[in-house]
Amino acid sequence: MTELRQVRVQEQLLKVNDFLARQLKDSWTAQGSFVINLLSSPGSGKTSLLEATLPRLQAVHQVLVLEGDIETDLDARRIRGAGGQALQLTTGGTCHLEAHMLQQAWELLLKERGGPPAFDFVFIENIGNLVCPASYDLGEHLRVVLLSVPEGEDKPPKYPKAFHSADVVLITKVDVLPHFDFRVEEATRLARELNPRVEVLQLSARTGQGLDAWIDQLVSRREATLGRR
Amino acid sequence: MTELRQVRVQEQLLKVNDFLARQLKDSWTAQGSFVINLLSSPGSGKTSLLEATLPRLQAVHQVLVLEGDIETDLDARRIRGAGGQALQLTTGGTCHLEAHMLQQAWELLLKERGGPPAFDFVFIENIGNLVCPASYDLGEHLRVVLLSVPEGEDKPPKYPKAFHSADVVLITKVDVLPHFDFRVEEATRLARELNPRVEVLQLSARTGQGLDAWIDQLVSRREATLGRR
Repeated sequence: MTELRQVRVQEQLLKVNDFLARQLKDSWTAQGSFVINLLSSPGSGKTSLLEATLPRLQAVHQVLVLEGDIETDLDARRIRGAGGQALQLTTGGTCHLEAHMLQQAWELLLKERGGPPAFDFVFIENIGNLVCPASYDLGEHLRVVLLSVPEGEDKPPKYPKAFHSADVVLITKVDVLPHFDFRVEEATRLARELNPRVEVLQLSARTGQGLDAWIDQLVSRREATLGRR
Repeated sequence: MTELRQVRVQEQLLKVNDFLARQLKDSWTAQGSFVINLLSSPGSGKTSLLEATLPRLQAVHQVLVLEGDIETDLDARRIRGAGGQALQLTTGGTCHLEAHMLQQAWELLLKERGGPPAFDFVFIENIGNLVCPASYDLGEHLRVVLLSVPEGEDKPPKYPKAFHSADVVLITKVDVLPHFDFRVEEATRLARELNPRVEVLQLSARTGQGLDAWIDQLVSRREATLGRR
């Protein structure tokens, strides 16, 4: 019985979340901000990906990172250390970000800057968790799920919601492929079994391998979604 | 407002869970079963740890694995492939195991075997998630949190509940230390900052490094908790 009650409250909350997510998406689209939601297990390399991405993307574009963490602002500091702009969102225990948290963050930014902030790209680094964040639409234009080589190729069927809802699966830390039993083809096949049209890219933030293709993907997806501006 | 409601239902559920967990612990203690709850991110090596542990422990002891997964029975099959006995618990979306799920599983076993099953060690492989499972006592005697080298040394302060509630932190995949920027001393310091008395062990399921100390730890903790039987 207690379970059923939880499910009902959960369903209600998801409806509220979806409503707020649509509002967010509309306002981001109107402001020309292309928003990317990064999902993965802890330690799959979301922050390292951003540290490698920012210098390249910021050469031409305005970029913001919204850093989701349960505790600490370690990741926001890493982003600022890489020359990026970051706003820290600390959930204090909650295992995922929700649309209302993003809305609060965005209102704070509007207030601080006295008008809509003109960011071409906004990255949301979600809580490190391959389960819960998959259920919460944050109004993003693109959902990217990172799967790092050390985690193993069997993750898509074991965490189906995340991989099913992904637009792009990014296989990270490919520089350590020689040291792990991980077949990129098998991981790709398992991801596509759940999600036939998903784009699968390989990347190493450490060596830079795959970074060009990733940046191209972001820029072309932004143009396809928001038009050339 | 919706948030407050969620918190209240959550608190109620946690109280029910703690009540059931105490019942479970009492019956496991009475039956001589030492129960270990394994917590970690996806892909930190929980199943590989068990595959390496079972042959050693089963030489002398009766062992059971309760396999928690959101979907699939891939891990239970791996355990059976390693000569172990496994019961699969599939949550169908829930991001953690709860005491009532364990109680159902245990009743099923009692029924099948026509009496209390005589296992010296019962391993619970929790859902791959470093956040939610930390809040749910399953009646275990020992809570072990795995932190794999590729995840990075900064995880304890970022996922404090798991590390705070751990009896043992197991640093896994230490065979790949040369390929990652991971300082064991720093990870240990960060874990002990949250939890001064936590035991920190290093292990590689692939090479067998640290396996003796891990097995010794299990056997001596069982004796200290349940007495020599």
